[in-house]
Amino acid sequence: MFVPRRGLQRIPSLATCMTPAGGVKRGRPMRSALLSSVLTAALASAAPLPGVLELKAAADQLVPTPITADLGGMPASERKALARLLQAARVMDPLFLRQSWAGSEAWLVKLARDTTPLGQARLRLFLLNQGPWDRLAHYAPFLPGVPPKPASGNFYPAGATKEDVSRWLSTLSPEERARASSFFTTIRRGPNGAFTIVPYSLEYQGELARAAGLLREAAGSTEQPALRSFLEKRAAALLNDDYAESDVAWMQLDTSIDPTFGPYETYEDEWFNQKAAFEAFITVVDAKETEKLKRFSSQLQALENALPMEDRYRNPKIGALAPIRVVNSVFAAGDANRGVQTAAYNLPNDERTVAAHGSKRVLLRNMDLAKFEKTLVPIAKIAIAPDLVRSVQFDPFFTQILMHELMHGIGPQRIVVNGRESTPRAELQEVSSTIEECKADVVGIWAMQRLVSQGQL
Amino acid sequence: MFVPRRGLQRIPSLATCMTPAGGVKRGRPMRSALLSSVLTAALASAAPLPGVLELKAAADQLVPTPITADLGGMPASERKALARLLQAARVMDPLFLRQSWAGSEAWLVKLARDTTPLGQARLRLFLLNQGPWDRLAHYAPFLPGVPPKPASGNFYPAGATKEDVSRWLSTLSPEERARASSFFTTIRRGPNGAFTIVPYSLEYQGELARAAGLLREAAGSTEQPALRSFLEKRAAALLNDDYAESDVAWMQLDTSIDPTFGPYETYEDEWFNQKAAFEAFITVVDAKETEKLKRFSSQLQALENALPMEDRYRNPKIGALAPIRVVNSVFAAGDANRGVQTAAYNLPNDERTVAAHGSKRVLLRNMDLAKFEKTLVPIAKIAIAPDLVRSVQFDPFFTQILMHELMHGIGPQRIVVNGRESTPRAELQEVSSTIEECKADVVGIWAMQRLVSQGQL
Repeated sequence: MFVPRRGLQRIPSLATCMTPAGGVKRGRPMRSALLSSVLTAALASAAPLPGVLELKAAADQLVPTPITADLGGMPASERKALARLLQAARVMDPLFLRQSWAGSEAWLVKLARDTTPLGQARLRLFLLNQGPWDRLAHYAPFLPGVPPKPASGNFYPAGATKEDVSRWLSTLSPEERARASSFFTTIRRGPNGAFTIVPYSLEYQGELARAAGLLREAAGSTEQPALRSFLEKRAAALLNDDYAESDVAWMQLDTSIDPTFGPYETYEDEWFNQKAAFEAFITVVDAKETEKLKRFSSQLQALENALPMEDRYRNPKIGALAPIRVVNSVFAAGDANRGVQTAAYNLPNDERTVAAHGSKRVLLRNMDLAKFEKTLVPIAKIAIAPDLVRSVQFDPFFTQILMHELMHGIGPQRIVVNGRESTPRAELQEVSSTIEECKADVVGIWAMQRLVSQGQL
Repeated sequence: MFVPRRGLQRIPSLATCMTPAGGVKRGRPMRSALLSSVLTAALASAAPLPGVLELKAAADQLVPTPITADLGGMPASERKALARLLQAARVMDPLFLRQSWAGSEAWLVKLARDTTPLGQARLRLFLLNQGPWDRLAHYAPFLPGVPPKPASGNFYPAGATKEDVSRWLSTLSPEERARASSFFTTIRRGPNGAFTIVPYSLEYQGELARAAGLLREAAGSTEQPALRSFLEKRAAALLNDDYAESDVAWMQLDTSIDPTFGPYETYEDEWFNQKAAFEAFITVVDAKETEKLKRFSSQLQALENALPMEDRYRNPKIGALAPIRVVNSVFAAGDANRGVQTAAYNLPNDERTVAAHGSKRVLLRNMDLAKFEKTLVPIAKIAIAPDLVRSVQFDPFFTQILMHELMHGIGPQRIVVNGRESTPRAELQEVSSTIEECKADVVGIWAMQRLVSQGQL
């Protein structure tokens, strides 16, 4: 049985996605990431606000596409767990809105009350972008009086500059600095105006307690022990900010439902790429396709050993866990459902967990099929000589996405700078996401060439 | 010039508002406040969820009514300030949603995405009620899987009971207990699971910093010094939780714009009636009508002296400030725009400020006119003998509202219980709001009778 998705996923159409979507970890086109900070300010003041027609045209760049997943044969216990996971996932939406800008939720209420054609067109584009900036147009604001997208998100004290925060960080003890630079804390002002560290479990406690309760209800329904264990550990992590144990439980999942749930990606923190945004991918595993890709996991150490870089950056023993899961998306929320949809992901991002245990790649097959059909094939028909179009096949496209994700798991994770332990993320700050994505693209092509030469691919 | 309101205010129609609206401080019908806790649980499980027709019927109990305010002659500086105040007011909407339930904002996103007739009907009723419970039907939930309205709002730790919190409060030092019982703190769990006190200025810092910035922009625009002073002080209070000074500045306002802005009423905290919900009334003063009512302020000490109660409860010198402002509403948000609209209010609620300085009554004349025309007159035509209907006039209705509000300012404010300083609010806990409203109604009638006898009315 094929069950239609509750919400339609949007796929970028020809007009806006001239780069192949496969190699991009997040759907966000690379040029946007590279140029956004330069262009946003200019566009914000220069461009007139879009009217109903322009808003509709902007939204129509994303093609509504029914996404299905096979729930046939799933027992009642798992369906009930899935229903609870969907409820929990919805909690990620307002948290993500709040994390990207403190003004977004007030706008959502205003637009939801506005039944005029202009209000409805604005609401539609707002929901697609999870905020008042068009992510396909270099974050151009499309609502009146909205400032440029804040590079600091809503993670740092209002009115502070990046320099203020950097200076403050440099005064902290190593332990406090680690807390302040954690994925899972915000920086606020205390009563005297001084900066203070607030754990996510306090900042978002009301919503996280609700999400944790729903995860525990799902844990109470499922009859799959590994899923139950992960959900209970992740519920605890939401309330104590210690995600390491549940990250390992997540990598060890071998269950029919594979939920990704919590604070993960750091794109909204364009100051330091350090603060994680809340998201949820609720997916069901495609066991047959997963089986096909298992052999790639065993190639990772050999690829790490062969990486064209100095030996001192090399990891002699990469994490034991390198699962690859091919899944079909059932529901996505928060950071996982903004603008262009995600093709695949490699998580966790926490370098300590990756170095100690490894990381897991999840490929969203139904989403990738839609991207292939709605984006890549139409582009190919225009951009490629007719006699070569027949070579544009889904399997190589899917393999390219896989290789991109695998490459996130190799290369330098923990480094030493002037005798100090660090990570590429901490050193590269606001350009670390972009460089990491470029690395995965370039090294992915290198790895494919190598595997083809070796007859492995 | 008459300027139409940006959003329509809803007025209860005949079907649901059989009690005169005038004497009720908040529009919430008294029976709802008295019976809600008993009925909600039963209704939540018993009643089937409403469909499109039932949702529409529930929403149609509130009659959309254009509300106007005269902005003629208002200079550009004040119009610009007004525009900034409206923007700031909108920040109160998501904060109020969040304060009443941790699940509300996730539902708002879901409903805003739902373009089916059922989804749209649900969204409309959700926005009218600022949450998933019908405030005109004993808080019956109208969305699937929604629990009964939590009596604790989102002010106390998830999973805790009122008894847990009471027990914890009793272990605190007087200073800590005062902080824990403050209008402007939430109670959360710390890393070890123990209860901890979080000031509003930290809990809601992202949004409050944005609101404070907009208030300061309004302060920079207005050319009325008293308004500028209030806005700057209130902006500071949002970020340091010390509202006393700006409360006094608010009572001293004698300006054409009269904004009420911040955390005030405690109805959403049905455990202790202690935690204040965010709201904003942006209003313009009706100078002529305000002038007419000035003489009532001078009657308050005489009424306090004559109150039929023991002398030890009597305040020999009630606060010097007792302004009465007749205003026209331009915009309301948060707690000020849920369900039945507010007729008038008496603020602040903080007993220390009231005892030291007094309190201010604000009557929303355009709202009261709409209530009179859309609710009271139709009720009168059914319920009162035809030859008496001509006595149903706006002025007595308005006077009754005024007397109700004036009576909030007299009677016991600070009391001594077993040698301990306290307030009626702290002692009466969850019934304090209801009893305070009943007091204002009953004493208001007593006062009117007295003033009529004395030829003052």
